[in-house]
Amino acid sequence: MKNSNKNKSLKSFLNLTTVTFVMVFFSIPYLGISQDPQLPVKPNVIIIFADDLGYGDLSSYGHPTINTPNLDRMASEGQKWTNFYVGASVCTPSRAALMTGRLPVRNGLTSSEVGVFFPDSHNGIPAEEVTIAEQLKSAGYATGMVGKWHLGHKEEYLPTSHGFDDYYGIPYSNDMDHTGKINSIEEYFGRYTDTYEERTPEEFNVPILRGTEVVERPAKQNTLTKRYTEEAVKWIKNHKEGPFFMYLAHSLPHVPLFVSDEFRGTSKRGLYGDVVEEIDHGVGEIMKLLEAEGLDKNTIVIFTSDNGPWLSTGISGGSAGLLHEGKGSTWEGGMREPGIFWSPGYIKPKLVTGMGTTMDLFNTFSNLAGVAIPADREMDGIDLSPVLFGNGDSPRNEVFYYKGPELYAVRVGAYKAHFITQDGYKPNTLAKHDPPLLFNIEQDPSEKYDLAKKQPEEIERIMQVVKEHNSNMIKGPDLLKDRG
Amino acid sequence: MKNSNKNKSLKSFLNLTTVTFVMVFFSIPYLGISQDPQLPVKPNVIIIFADDLGYGDLSSYGHPTINTPNLDRMASEGQKWTNFYVGASVCTPSRAALMTGRLPVRNGLTSSEVGVFFPDSHNGIPAEEVTIAEQLKSAGYATGMVGKWHLGHKEEYLPTSHGFDDYYGIPYSNDMDHTGKINSIEEYFGRYTDTYEERTPEEFNVPILRGTEVVERPAKQNTLTKRYTEEAVKWIKNHKEGPFFMYLAHSLPHVPLFVSDEFRGTSKRGLYGDVVEEIDHGVGEIMKLLEAEGLDKNTIVIFTSDNGPWLSTGISGGSAGLLHEGKGSTWEGGMREPGIFWSPGYIKPKLVTGMGTTMDLFNTFSNLAGVAIPADREMDGIDLSPVLFGNGDSPRNEVFYYKGPELYAVRVGAYKAHFITQDGYKPNTLAKHDPPLLFNIEQDPSEKYDLAKKQPEEIERIMQVVKEHNSNMIKGPDLLKDRG
Repeated sequence: MKNSNKNKSLKSFLNLTTVTFVMVFFSIPYLGISQDPQLPVKPNVIIIFADDLGYGDLSSYGHPTINTPNLDRMASEGQKWTNFYVGASVCTPSRAALMTGRLPVRNGLTSSEVGVFFPDSHNGIPAEEVTIAEQLKSAGYATGMVGKWHLGHKEEYLPTSHGFDDYYGIPYSNDMDHTGKINSIEEYFGRYTDTYEERTPEEFNVPILRGTEVVERPAKQNTLTKRYTEEAVKWIKNHKEGPFFMYLAHSLPHVPLFVSDEFRGTSKRGLYGDVVEEIDHGVGEIMKLLEAEGLDKNTIVIFTSDNGPWLSTGISGGSAGLLHEGKGSTWEGGMREPGIFWSPGYIKPKLVTGMGTTMDLFNTFSNLAGVAIPADREMDGIDLSPVLFGNGDSPRNEVFYYKGPELYAVRVGAYKAHFITQDGYKPNTLAKHDPPLLFNIEQDPSEKYDLAKKQPEEIERIMQVVKEHNSNMIKGPDLLKDRG
Repeated sequence: MKNSNKNKSLKSFLNLTTVTFVMVFFSIPYLGISQDPQLPVKPNVIIIFADDLGYGDLSSYGHPTINTPNLDRMASEGQKWTNFYVGASVCTPSRAALMTGRLPVRNGLTSSEVGVFFPDSHNGIPAEEVTIAEQLKSAGYATGMVGKWHLGHKEEYLPTSHGFDDYYGIPYSNDMDHTGKINSIEEYFGRYTDTYEERTPEEFNVPILRGTEVVERPAKQNTLTKRYTEEAVKWIKNHKEGPFFMYLAHSLPHVPLFVSDEFRGTSKRGLYGDVVEEIDHGVGEIMKLLEAEGLDKNTIVIFTSDNGPWLSTGISGGSAGLLHEGKGSTWEGGMREPGIFWSPGYIKPKLVTGMGTTMDLFNTFSNLAGVAIPADREMDGIDLSPVLFGNGDSPRNEVFYYKGPELYAVRVGAYKAHFITQDGYKPNTLAKHDPPLLFNIEQDPSEKYDLAKKQPEEIERIMQVVKEHNSNMIKGPDLLKDRG
C-alpha cells in the first residue's frame, strides 16, 4: 500500500502515535460533515475468524437458508463491509496477513509448492515478525487466542511465542493428521460431493493445545465450536478490566464438518448450515456477555473469515454468493469475505462499500492503542478509522491478489486486472492473460464482462501501481515447502 | 395448492371469513408456543412491486454495491422472506398471478407463443377474473394503483375496470412502442452488454395514463420513479382514514434504464444501481409518510418484484445472487424474488425461510378484510397469516413453475424436480428431462447437484403432487397470442 502517494501520506499521517493529534485531525470538518468522530482509546478488541466461510454464507450477505441472527444483528447495528478482503485465498498465508499486517509474500509464509503448513512442516512464523498481539501487548493489553493457529506448530511458532498470553485450540487444519481410513486426497474429495457424509473425529489425529501442551488428541471435534466459545467467554470475563485482545479463530466450517448435538439438524442448509449457525450462536453468546458486563461500550468486535468457500468439497463447502469462484482462487470469491464491525460504543452503523483488508486491522488497532507501526519493514495495512469512527471514505484504494509468491491480480478503485487466473483446486484452469483481463467489479461484481479492449487506460493505470508495488517488493524465502 | 390434504384442510379453514373465528384458532397454542398472535382487521395494504429486479439486487439480499437502506430497514424491522416466489418468470403472467391469486395458466394470461402483452395485443385480463383490488374494494377499501399494469391496455382491461378507484401509470413495459431508431430486438439486446448505454425517452412512445386517459406521450421516463412515488404518497395521504390498498408497480429497473438527475451517478453499481437506489428512496418516502401520519401502526407494506433479472441485457440487467439464471427461466433465479413484509404494528420481525408466493397475498388480505375467497374456481393462494402474525411455519409446501402453459418444474418441500429447463431468452438451451432433474434447493440453492439417481423416492413424491395438480387443471385459452 506504499504505492500510491495519497495512501502514503495518509498512512504516515495516521501512523503518528499521538492519539490527541489524530483527534485534532478529525475535528477539522471534512467532506462537508462537521460531526467530530471520537476515536476510541485502547478499546478492547475481539476478532472472530471463521474458516472457509464464503461471502454468501450469512443471511445478511444473502444466504437463503442459513440463519445467522447474531451476525445479522452485528451487521445492522454496526458496519457491514461488502468489499472486505483477506491476504490470501488459503489458510496459512491469510492468517499470516491478519497477524502481521503484511502480504505473506514478504515474509515467506506462502509458497508456490504447497498451500499451507502441514503436520510435517518444519517451519512457522519467523521470530522477527511483529504480530498484532505483540503490538497490543506492548500497550498493556491482555492477549488471548482461542482456535486454529496454522502458523507453525512447534513451540517457538505457537501463539504464546508470538504475543498471546494464553492459547487454547488446534495448531493446524481440522482435516490434517488423517488416520489410515483415508487413503488419498482424491478419496477425500470424492466423499464430499452432492450429499453430506458425516465423519467421526477419530478419523483425524488433530491435537488440542493449551498454551504449548497437548491436552486432547484426537480433538473431539463435534464440540469444538461450543468449547471455543466457552473458552473465549471465560477468558473475556477474566480480563474484563481491559484492555484486552481476544482472537477467536474457529476451525469450522472447514471440512470435515462437525457440529454439537444441540445444533445438529437445525439448519435447512443441512450440516454446513448447522455448523455456521453454531458459530453464529457463539457470536451471540459473546455479544450477550459484553452487554451484560457493560463491555459493549468499549469493545470492538470484528467478524470475518480466512478465505472463500471450498467449492471442490461440493455440498459440504460454502457459497461465495454472486462472487465468482472460491478458496484457492484470486477471483473475488476466493478472497472477498463478510466483514462485520460491531461496537455500539464506537462504531457508526452503515453499509460500507469501500475496500478494507484483514491487514488493516493491524494498523487500525495499533494506532488506537498508541503503538507505533514497525518502521523497519514494508507494511501493507491502512488505518480504517476514518470509516469506522467517522464519515470518511475508506482510505484503501488498492488490493493485491497473490497466489503463493505470484501476483495474480490487482484492484485499483473499481477496476481489477487479472494477469493470471486459476479456479480453486483446478490446476488445469491456470491461464495467463496478456493483456490482462479487466473488470469493473463495482458494476460487475461477478467478473463477467472483460473490458480490457474498451478501457486500456485502466490497465495502464493499474500497471503503474504494479510497477511501484514491485519496486518495494522483496520476497521472503519459501518457509512452507520444507516438510517431512 | 389443492393437491395436498394438509394444505387443503388448512386452506378451507383459513378461508372462513369470520375473523373472530380465525382468532380463536390462533389463540389455541400451537407448535408449543403460547403467545397469541393478533390478526389485523382490515389493515391498510401497500404492495410495492419492482420490475425485473433480481433476488440478489438489494444490500440486504447480498448485493455489494447497491445500497438500499430503506428496504434493508424494512427487512430488519419486518420479515425478510428468502423463499418467496412469483407466478411466472415474465411480466404479464407474473402480474396476473399477483392480481388474481391464480396460476396464469388457468385464465389464459400466459402463452407458449408470446411472453407478454404488447401494444398491438387485442386482449387483456378477462372480466370474470376477480382481482385482489376487487376483493378489498368489496370490503370498503379505497383502492389505488400507480405504475405499470401490463394486463391489457384497452379501457375494459385497465386497472379502473378491475377494482382500482384510481390509476396513474404506463399500461405496458417501458421498452415497448419503440420508435424507428431501433430496428430489431437483436440490435436492442446488442446495445446492452458490458457497458451502459443510456437511452432517451423519445426512443419509445410509451404513454402515461391517468384513469383511462393518456396524459403524457412519450412518457418522460427519467422522472417516472420519482413521479410514481409522489403520486403514491399523495394518494395515501388522501385516503389516510383507511382502509386503503395501494399497488405501486414501478416500471424499473426493466431496461431501458432511466433515472432522475438526483440519482444519476449515486451508485457504485452504475446506472442499474442508481435506478434501484431511486426506488429504495421512494420506499423510504412512503415509510416516512406512514410514520408521520401514524399509519405504520395499521398498514402492511410488501416489497417484491415481478420476475428475476434480465440477464441477456448484460450489465444493464440485475443479479439473482447465488441463484441460477434469471428472467424467462424456471431455474430459481427466474422466479424467486426478495419478499419483504413490514408493519411495525402487526408483523413479527424474523427471517422466514419457508415458502410464499405473490398469489398468497390474495388469500391473506382477503381473509384479513373478511372477504370470501371465490369458491367457483381453482385458486392457488394460501393465507400466510400463521407466519406473518404468529410463530407458525409457512403453510405453503409446493410451488409450480410454469413457462407459458407448460409445467416446467415443481417444488415440494426442500426438493425441486425439473421436467423441462431453459435458460432465459436462450431457446437453444431448451432441454427435457426424464427422469427429471432433482435438487434439494434448501441445501443446494444454486441447483448444482442433481440427486435424481440417489433419491428417486423424492421424484416419486413430487410426481404424486403433479398428478393431483393436473387432475384439477383446466387450462385457459391463450389470450396473449392474438395481436396485430
